Amino acid sequence: MIPGEQALREVVALLHGELVSSGLVIWTGGNVSGRLPDGDHFLIKPSGIDYDLLEPRHLMLCDLQGEVVTGSLGSDGSPSSDTAAHAYVYRNMPAVGGVVHTHSTYATAWAARGEAIPCVITAMADEFGGPVPVGPFAMIGDDSIGRGIVETLTGHRSRAVLMQNHGPFTIGRDARDAVKAAVMAEDVARTVHIAAQAGPLIPIPQDAVDTLFARYQNVYGESPQGELFN
Amino acid sequence: MIPGEQALREVVALLHGELVSSGLVIWTGGNVSGRLPDGDHFLIKPSGIDYDLLEPRHLMLCDLQGEVVTGSLGSDGSPSSDTAAHAYVYRNMPAVGGVVHTHSTYATAWAARGEAIPCVITAMADEFGGPVPVGPFAMIGDDSIGRGIVETLTGHRSRAVLMQNHGPFTIGRDARDAVKAAVMAEDVARTVHIAAQAGPLIPIPQDAVDTLFARYQNVYGESPQGELFN
Amino acid sequence: MIPGEQALREVVALLHGELVSSGLVIWTGGNVSGRLPDGDHFLIKPSGIDYDLLEPRHLMLCDLQGEVVTGSLGSDGSPSSDTAAHAYVYRNMPAVGGVVHTHSTYATAWAARGEAIPCVITAMADEFGGPVPVGPFAMIGDDSIGRGIVETLTGHRSRAVLMQNHGPFTIGRDARDAVKAAVMAEDVARTVHIAAQAGPLIPIPQDAVDTLFARYQNVYGESPQGELFN
Amino acid sequence: MIPGEQALREVVALLHGELVSSGLVIWTGGNVSGRLPDGDHFLIKPSGIDYDLLEPRHLMLCDLQGEVVTGSLGSDGSPSSDTAAHAYVYRNMPAVGGVVHTHSTYATAWAARGEAIPCVITAMADEFGGPVPVGPFAMIGDDSIGRGIVETLTGHRSRAVLMQNHGPFTIGRDARDAVKAAVMAEDVARTVHIAAQAGPLIPIPQDAVDTLFARYQNVYGESPQGELFN
Repeated sequence: MIPGEQALREVVALLHGELVSSGLVIWTGGNVSGRLPDGDHFLIKPSGIDYDLLEPRHLMLCDLQGEVVTGSLGSDGSPSSDTAAHAYVYRNMPAVGGVVHTHSTYATAWAARGEAIPCVITAMADEFGGPVPVGPFAMIGDDSIGRGIVETLTGHRSRAVLMQNHGPFTIGRDARDAVKAAVMAEDVARTVHIAAQAGPLIPIPQDAVDTLFARYQNVYGESPQGELFN
Repeated sequence: MIPGEQALREVVALLHGELVSSGLVIWTGGNVSGRLPDGDHFLIKPSGIDYDLLEPRHLMLCDLQGEVVTGSLGSDGSPSSDTAAHAYVYRNMPAVGGVVHTHSTYATAWAARGEAIPCVITAMADEFGGPVPVGPFAMIGDDSIGRGIVETLTGHRSRAVLMQNHGPFTIGRDARDAVKAAVMAEDVARTVHIAAQAGPLIPIPQDAVDTLFARYQNVYGESPQGELFN
Repeated sequence: MIPGEQALREVVALLHGELVSSGLVIWTGGNVSGRLPDGDHFLIKPSGIDYDLLEPRHLMLCDLQGEVVTGSLGSDGSPSSDTAAHAYVYRNMPAVGGVVHTHSTYATAWAARGEAIPCVITAMADEFGGPVPVGPFAMIGDDSIGRGIVETLTGHRSRAVLMQNHGPFTIGRDARDAVKAAVMAEDVARTVHIAAQAGPLIPIPQDAVDTLFARYQNVYGESPQGELFN
Repeated sequence: MIPGEQALREVVALLHGELVSSGLVIWTGGNVSGRLPDGDHFLIKPSGIDYDLLEPRHLMLCDLQGEVVTGSLGSDGSPSSDTAAHAYVYRNMPAVGGVVHTHSTYATAWAARGEAIPCVITAMADEFGGPVPVGPFAMIGDDSIGRGIVETLTGHRSRAVLMQNHGPFTIGRDARDAVKAAVMAEDVARTVHIAAQAGPLIPIPQDAVDTLFARYQNVYGESPQGELFN
């Protein structure tokens, strides 16, 4: 075992339970991954497993090319179909320690229109520092999804991207931070959708957005995209 | 007992619990059936039973005409009002091993407008290979509903049909696969409804839909309608 | 104790739990009542009690004038504010054995517009035999609400009425039947609302509505308003 | 310990669970506070704690300037970011015994449009005596939010205010009463939003609103803003 692997297995397994209890996933959809302390590996959900059967030992250990480490726990199965996308993010964003993907309802609805979520509530300024952006339409199976995530989130305050016609991917300092971003992304997607159904939204002035984001990073820790506020 | 009957009783009883936990049914509505290994019988929920009282022994054993097998477990009650529709499907679609019917909210809402769900999210291309179609308005009590299901789904990639003014019926390789289709049908019905409330949806190009469906069938198993992709 | 009182206390207490698990009530709102076998009394929830504290012995025994029977179990508290309305229904509709009132979200939304729910799904034809009607705006504190319920539902197939700007009241052969009507009323209110948000609804022909209602009454028992179908 | 502190710790910890079970909060967001019997202190949730880990001993004891009482239970952590707002309310509204803040979905949606919730359902007349008002846009970190709450609710019947682009704050005679106001505010925000999506709402005449509010205050206890009805 790689140092820290067992502890991370337990955390990442528990965090999959958060996706369920937060209503972000159905059936076997969605996945959480977490990078190991060595920086060169990550743990990810196997493909097609029921959430209520998932145990720490089922998580699959992959290198940064997305290849399963042979002989490791869980290595008999297949890793999530989204493993290549997670691997691409870990290879190209060294400060990222966790990645989450879901098809949560409201975030996916914005993605089906290819529309960014405007920043009209203070919780969104706190958490994402502005709008939640849209990434390109990309097919599963090669680096397209990973590249779309990295290109959209590099230099952006948001830890969430809505991949067009697909759904949200979120990143974080660690797996828990990425899950928090997934929970908050769905929450703001829902609230802003509902707000917009009934009339014009009041924008938050840019300097207020900046101040709220800076304060929140100071209290809860810096985004993995680095110091984006000045 | 028919070989495999007891095992299927347990599976089908558990799958009814999935309808409840997934929020697809209320009160005593909805039903799951599963075909026995002999191909000539299926198990279905009795009429009007509370979900939290349903046990494997309550499920009713029917032949492919929808007649209850006398003397079998559960044969004192009445089978679901939808038994004739399930039987028609089993008689006419030999590869179908499970059938599910619900009045799940969003799928039924599309059905009340007689409108197919357009394929604008990749999860829908994966699961249904295109739009979820609408079947005819049909009265309960004879073969009308079963015929509408079979005529709509034969030669179609979708395992779900929205029966007009009524609600979704889904089919699968087995009962679990049909329940998965019911869960996914409601999920895409909800997501696409919400997306469409706020502006135009971006279609997914047909060749991308084809590629996604082919990959997914390869990973998770072929649809009971047979090899529909080429 | 009146014959059958203890059994009814247990049933009515359990049915209050159904209101909670079905998402029809919040905080201490809503109430179920059930008529005793003697025909001359009913049991109803006390005012302002938490649902998770409600026990059979807390239910209050009232006569058909809505007066608490002194010395009976629960008679130290105050009965629900809606007791006069329940009593009016029991006095004037002898076949009614149960009454339910909630402020469930979608049914109350139709009530805030004073708009009847059109019959566009077969489950609604089954259960209510047509549209769910609107009753008058009526103030709490005298017979106004009860009179509005009785005048609207007498000679109507529906067991649910949407009291304008207030919320749904439902009746049934017994308390469980009235709770079923409350659950189904919210379900059809939600489904038809969502359906109508996205375009025109397809009506169900009147003769099909009639046939569906007749079949369902035959299977699940007749409405307390008597033989309304012919 | 201040007299009554331990009992209040237990109540306020339990009430945080109500925010979760009522669906008003996600992750670590939202907070409840309660004033101690001495009038000069209140207990509030620490910043960033998981709801399922929160115990009575974690609550932080603050004076009316919002300063943590050193050496008290929980005083090693940081109090909620919203502590200054709570303190301002307690300083300036002596009859207020509890304050709640959430970002509950529908109430926050109205806040994102800066739109008051009109009084079109009787439960709202009962509980809030009229519309739920909007407060100013205010930045976190000084007295702005507290001042906005107090200025909006002083002389108003409503115990809830929708702070623009932010979310609801509610007050009460005690912490439980403030939580009830938060639950009811989200409920009416949701119901009235949904009602308004489908057509014009029927207003409730002012004299009926007045009568309903007076009756309800008489039954369930007077608002902390004092005798507002006459």
